[in-house]
Amino acid sequence: MSNSTALPLVILTENFAKLPGIGMKTAERLAYYVMQSPKEYAESFAAALIDVKNSVTECKICCNFSESEICGVCKNPKREASTICVVTTPKDIESFERTNEYHGVYHVLHGLLSPMDNIRPDDIRIKELLIRLQTPETPVKEVIMATNPTVEGEATAMYIARLLKPLGIKVTRIALGIPVGSSLEYADSVTLWRAIQNRNEL
Amino acid sequence: MSNSTALPLVILTENFAKLPGIGMKTAERLAYYVMQSPKEYAESFAAALIDVKNSVTECKICCNFSESEICGVCKNPKREASTICVVTTPKDIESFERTNEYHGVYHVLHGLLSPMDNIRPDDIRIKELLIRLQTPETPVKEVIMATNPTVEGEATAMYIARLLKPLGIKVTRIALGIPVGSSLEYADSVTLWRAIQNRNEL
Repeated sequence: MSNSTALPLVILTENFAKLPGIGMKTAERLAYYVMQSPKEYAESFAAALIDVKNSVTECKICCNFSESEICGVCKNPKREASTICVVTTPKDIESFERTNEYHGVYHVLHGLLSPMDNIRPDDIRIKELLIRLQTPETPVKEVIMATNPTVEGEATAMYIARLLKPLGIKVTRIALGIPVGSSLEYADSVTLWRAIQNRNEL
Repeated sequence: MSNSTALPLVILTENFAKLPGIGMKTAERLAYYVMQSPKEYAESFAAALIDVKNSVTECKICCNFSESEICGVCKNPKREASTICVVTTPKDIESFERTNEYHGVYHVLHGLLSPMDNIRPDDIRIKELLIRLQTPETPVKEVIMATNPTVEGEATAMYIARLLKPLGIKVTRIALGIPVGSSLEYADSVTLWRAIQNRNEL
């Protein structure tokens, strides 16, 4: 932006542009939008930004983002604490909750193993999972590995599965196959082969 | 979002989702990004939001966004105050400034006439333009209408041109034609016809 633009607008634009997927053009558009919105919007937006950093921490049990020491899922006595679904990010919990079918609890890794990016077992919440499994209030019967079916996701799932084997806990992996409602025509060959390998009896 | 999400994250997501072109999925992603960023980022972002509403107003002369009573362009003695380029939004000034060729001044309408959306002459900065033309420090020789070549843009340009005729000021319209570097193959027929109408002698 040139010097024909007011400095506060330039600074706001730069802040927007730091967000993932927001380029300079979009950031400029968003900054102008805020400029032309009621003052109340800018104020509530600013308060929300501060609030999210000040009052949200990680649940002491599952490492999900939470306002309290223990998150809503871990606190809920109706959830089956004997089944733990291991996910990569807090957002993944959202996806499972939307199914309205899963009644177990979660564990958030906050990342995946990736030697290329120098992300090692100590950098994600694997230690927290092990401590949790060794000192549970409710005995854990099953750990479901629900990381993405990518190289890093698969490697992390395999690594954790190997760590848990000696503890005598059942470790499972979410099924890979054809998405519901999709067409075989558009499925890639690796997915198709997995769908055949994981076939179920009718 | 379900109740497995911390409330401050939900509120921040809703604030992001109010921005133009940002849907709920993207807003969620941005809120999680802020949550995982350093606290300094959230703080500077929040301060920028407040600052833009508190310290940016409209230039008393050209109605562009400005930190001071008179904006940088109007204050600059090197700009030719005898030529006024009339634009729709402050962002359009950015575009003209990027050409590094225009040395006149601007006038921002902050909108276009649109009877359908109930935007009438009093809702945009036409009155301010007339006052400016009738009581200028420097006599104005030319007013360039640089609104978009849309129905509303054309109508607003025509409306203002008719208002300025009795004042004896030259009113011009930016040229419509083929964009530089583009191919005739992809030009629509209306643009092509305008390009022929506005042809120049070589």
